Amino acid sequence: MRNIKMIVEYDGSRYYGLQKQPNKETVQSEIERAIKEVTSEEVTINYSGRTDAGVSAYGQVVSFKTNTNLPVDKLCMAINAHLKKSIIIQDVEDVQEDFHPRYSCKGKKYMYVINNSKYGSAIYRKNEYHVPQKLDVEKMKKAIKYFEGTHDFKGFKASGTSNKDSVRTIYETQIQTKDDRIYIILRGNGFLYNMVRIITGTLIDVGLGKIQPKDIPNIIEAKDRKKAGKTVPPHGLYLMEVYY
Amino acid sequence: MRNIKMIVEYDGSRYYGLQKQPNKETVQSEIERAIKEVTSEEVTINYSGRTDAGVSAYGQVVSFKTNTNLPVDKLCMAINAHLKKSIIIQDVEDVQEDFHPRYSCKGKKYMYVINNSKYGSAIYRKNEYHVPQKLDVEKMKKAIKYFEGTHDFKGFKASGTSNKDSVRTIYETQIQTKDDRIYIILRGNGFLYNMVRIITGTLIDVGLGKIQPKDIPNIIEAKDRKKAGKTVPPHGLYLMEVYY
Repeated sequence: MRNIKMIVEYDGSRYYGLQKQPNKETVQSEIERAIKEVTSEEVTINYSGRTDAGVSAYGQVVSFKTNTNLPVDKLCMAINAHLKKSIIIQDVEDVQEDFHPRYSCKGKKYMYVINNSKYGSAIYRKNEYHVPQKLDVEKMKKAIKYFEGTHDFKGFKASGTSNKDSVRTIYETQIQTKDDRIYIILRGNGFLYNMVRIITGTLIDVGLGKIQPKDIPNIIEAKDRKKAGKTVPPHGLYLMEVYY
Repeated sequence: MRNIKMIVEYDGSRYYGLQKQPNKETVQSEIERAIKEVTSEEVTINYSGRTDAGVSAYGQVVSFKTNTNLPVDKLCMAINAHLKKSIIIQDVEDVQEDFHPRYSCKGKKYMYVINNSKYGSAIYRKNEYHVPQKLDVEKMKKAIKYFEGTHDFKGFKASGTSNKDSVRTIYETQIQTKDDRIYIILRGNGFLYNMVRIITGTLIDVGLGKIQPKDIPNIIEAKDRKKAGKTVPPHGLYLMEVYY
């Protein structure tokens, strides 16, 4: 049996998240439906990790087992032909039997997009989070560097989620700007539930002057969800790439 | 009575065009409704020119007469508070009584966005036109230069539209690229109905190798809609700026 890896782009604003749910349109249910229309096989896809309703992906990775003989290019085109335009398979390849998008994953890159103009954007309102108060980007750039390295990010995960190992390593952080937009980029070996959105909320508090960059190490060390900033909304968040 | 000029951004994919139509949600009807909620006045806005259903604007200009005493900042915030997020007033100012967005207009800038990747974008599908066949951008850059200057653009307007003066001057043309995207930018003293979309369709024919850059002068000279390329869809088109 073949093991197929696919890179998937999707518009999270259109779906109730990635994971299948009864009677809800999700990215997983749409992809499984399209695969069935092409191969006549009932498959369950694996994926690198869930994304919440509203979160988009440029490079989500999924896999499935199939007996189809279709070459990868034809398979990609055929599945895309059965998907709505809000989900696009950008690449398909055959991988080894033991490849699993989650268990084989070595790291991920996320981006969070803030629009920091006075009134926000009508055209891109669904693709970014609007913060009308002027943010101090230089302070945010200082603050984000404290997140690099290996830390226990217990204070930066949604409260109520499971209490297993919350140590993660962030390899690289970046803040880029273009006109009124601020792009927060995090690359790490893994991220806890809501971790990127809580880090972003904390960085916004720095940008607003509510806390200082040098406060970040203490906030991480406290391991207390209440010390970190708020969880910013999902629609500014993008899963950019998954590393293997 | 005050004469108010406003700069408006809107997401054209959400509306049946700019101009008011019975029983349809249009940009004009929404703005007039919001003004009425703020000022209690029934106004009819003037605008720099219609945009079709699907066409977005960063910098449409509208004006209206009012007796309100609200300062411009408060007026802007109040009108935005009564609009959906798919229309945003980006600026409000008091202008002279004889200012009219269309009659006072000295020129306009439009942009058309093409996504030239193999499968297009799931996230930005409503903001750009997907052309999967690889386009030769260097040839398109040569071709677009022939549109600069003063020409009779009779062949580049929707057939069936009125036959009045079709001479227009294009001051500046540009083609920019970023990754798989191609941005076609035209600045001129005015544009005929569908003119930017037909010029773009013709440039795509150049990019596909169906015609050569040096064919453009003859196509313009022919003044025949059938000689020019097809009218590309509205959702890649943006009214960027209106000059006074």
